[in-house]
Amino acid sequence: MADLKSKFLKVYSVLKSELLEDPAFDFTKDSRQWVERMLDYNVPGGKLNRGLSVIDSYQLLQQGRELTEDEIFLASALGWCIEWYSSALHDKLTFLLWSHYLQLQAFFLVLDDIMDGSHTRRGQPCWFRLPKVGMIAVNDGVVLRNHIPRILRKYFREKPYYVDLLDLFNEVEFQTASGQMIDLITTIEGEKDLSKYSLSIHRRIVQYKTAYYSFYLSVACALLMSGEELEKHIDVKNILVEMGIYFQVQDDYLDCFGDPETIGKIGTDIEDFKCSWLVVKALELCNEEQKKVLHENYGKPDPENVATVKALYKELDIEGVFADYESKSYKKLTSWIEGHPSKAVQAVLKSFLGKIYKRQK
Amino acid sequence: MADLKSKFLKVYSVLKSELLEDPAFDFTKDSRQWVERMLDYNVPGGKLNRGLSVIDSYQLLQQGRELTEDEIFLASALGWCIEWYSSALHDKLTFLLWSHYLQLQAFFLVLDDIMDGSHTRRGQPCWFRLPKVGMIAVNDGVVLRNHIPRILRKYFREKPYYVDLLDLFNEVEFQTASGQMIDLITTIEGEKDLSKYSLSIHRRIVQYKTAYYSFYLSVACALLMSGEELEKHIDVKNILVEMGIYFQVQDDYLDCFGDPETIGKIGTDIEDFKCSWLVVKALELCNEEQKKVLHENYGKPDPENVATVKALYKELDIEGVFADYESKSYKKLTSWIEGHPSKAVQAVLKSFLGKIYKRQK
Repeated sequence: MADLKSKFLKVYSVLKSELLEDPAFDFTKDSRQWVERMLDYNVPGGKLNRGLSVIDSYQLLQQGRELTEDEIFLASALGWCIEWYSSALHDKLTFLLWSHYLQLQAFFLVLDDIMDGSHTRRGQPCWFRLPKVGMIAVNDGVVLRNHIPRILRKYFREKPYYVDLLDLFNEVEFQTASGQMIDLITTIEGEKDLSKYSLSIHRRIVQYKTAYYSFYLSVACALLMSGEELEKHIDVKNILVEMGIYFQVQDDYLDCFGDPETIGKIGTDIEDFKCSWLVVKALELCNEEQKKVLHENYGKPDPENVATVKALYKELDIEGVFADYESKSYKKLTSWIEGHPSKAVQAVLKSFLGKIYKRQK
Repeated sequence: MADLKSKFLKVYSVLKSELLEDPAFDFTKDSRQWVERMLDYNVPGGKLNRGLSVIDSYQLLQQGRELTEDEIFLASALGWCIEWYSSALHDKLTFLLWSHYLQLQAFFLVLDDIMDGSHTRRGQPCWFRLPKVGMIAVNDGVVLRNHIPRILRKYFREKPYYVDLLDLFNEVEFQTASGQMIDLITTIEGEKDLSKYSLSIHRRIVQYKTAYYSFYLSVACALLMSGEELEKHIDVKNILVEMGIYFQVQDDYLDCFGDPETIGKIGTDIEDFKCSWLVVKALELCNEEQKKVLHENYGKPDPENVATVKALYKELDIEGVFADYESKSYKKLTSWIEGHPSKAVQAVLKSFLGKIYKRQK
């Protein structure tokens, strides 16, 4: 496994150096340096689960047959395309957060900047310069996204499934962007209004914004490499999307009830007025009086408001409701998976489910 | 021609209504409305030259043969893909300008907002709310861009040239994003420094940022529809890229020397420290003393500085240098075009050149 990851990381260096020599663009020295720094900063950092799962899934679909170096390279290249895409998304989201941050903080930063007239704050480039970062960051996301078809073309152009790969990435990107759109419209547009939140809108946002690219995409890549037609695997898509939704519900749960030590952050979904599974469940279960409490306290930074919301969650036993949801989802997914005709596909789906069931982080 | 444009516009409505019913995404009422408004606001507005030139070029490649309704529809659909892409770019650029504007103006707006505590300025949503617009605008650009493969898949999936269409749009997008990157790195990164500007960097920015998608893309689409292989038309690409560069040089010239009435705006390239052909030419031709004047006056908002730069342009007879460049480019392009083996391709290229030669707007 560690060996696999090191092989996977070697492929990154190959892909990067080829992108930096792409004949379709006549790089300046500065722009080549910029792209290299931008890639190293954004792409190989994280857990790489999405990328690595392409190789895992392909291996399982080959039913344990020893993979050739070439197969490992190609599966890794597809895995990196997903990591490239995640980075492009992350870059966009960081930028969205940045502009949100700007909205909240600039106000005060400006005042300070006026007072001390300085152009840096605690060594950080001050607010005056942030927009420049932002301006280039927006384009960096587009550049990252444009790298994916370059990689696909270089290594898969001659494969019978090349056009299906292009269609797959295009469709998943369209779904992710559409999911982010309903998320933005629901949670950012207009004023904070809890009545916009419901289980069905939560499900839809999660399904499109996260599930397709985080769960379905890597398995779909492995299926295409194995010569399968995706039209014949709608059930695999549906199962993985369902798992992706379950995964996000866990995320929402851990944000409030998880151990900050273990998950590595202190959740702020309540303060941030997030359309979390917890709040939509609470809205579903609460009486008029409790609903009033939620409306008055959700999405406020004050610890007292947050505590009131958490107390209401306890009152409604949201933890119990989640435990129930978790075991029901697990049962449903398991029987769904075991109903699949192919043992190899079952193995792929079970390995995904096994990785996330009852996770604490 | 007016008839052609009305046919072209009818195709927009067809494409739009199909995108709003795309089975790949389960729209909410709000999100469908949002996309419809966003499309109507961003896509069909402009001159539509890029889109219409796909039909013109295809017609010329068919050597005047009467086109079928189906051919007109398909050529229009490809034309609209280019218009969709231009809108996505425009949305991104608007956003870049917006964040730049934010950098310059927020400072003062905030002060006013502090003073009157209001949340609107002259009926406009005030700066506090701009980031929301911005946040959704970033995603809208991504949504627009993701519509293109949806359109291509719906109408061209079964065509022998489908994969070439996908590759074409991917390559041109990659080149455009890369061109914008060197533009951003050169003109925005770091401090204002004229020594970064040169004819070669100007050429490279223009070639990648503008020429491929504004001049080459529409002809390439028409060639693919005509069953041609793009690998065999590298010369067509080179000629159109050269024309695109000539077109941008005209733009730079008109920004300073054009009639504001005719071009419909008052140029501000000098104030904005743009990497314009005029300033790189001036840098090339000026002596040390004049260079000092340029460095001291270029990129300053004060009318006196602008006047000094314009006076220097006169001194160096930049207008004469441009007139010389224009006639040389025209001669070069004409002989280049006439050297092309196919009369039909010559007709396409000549119609492009005819539209831009000695244009006043």
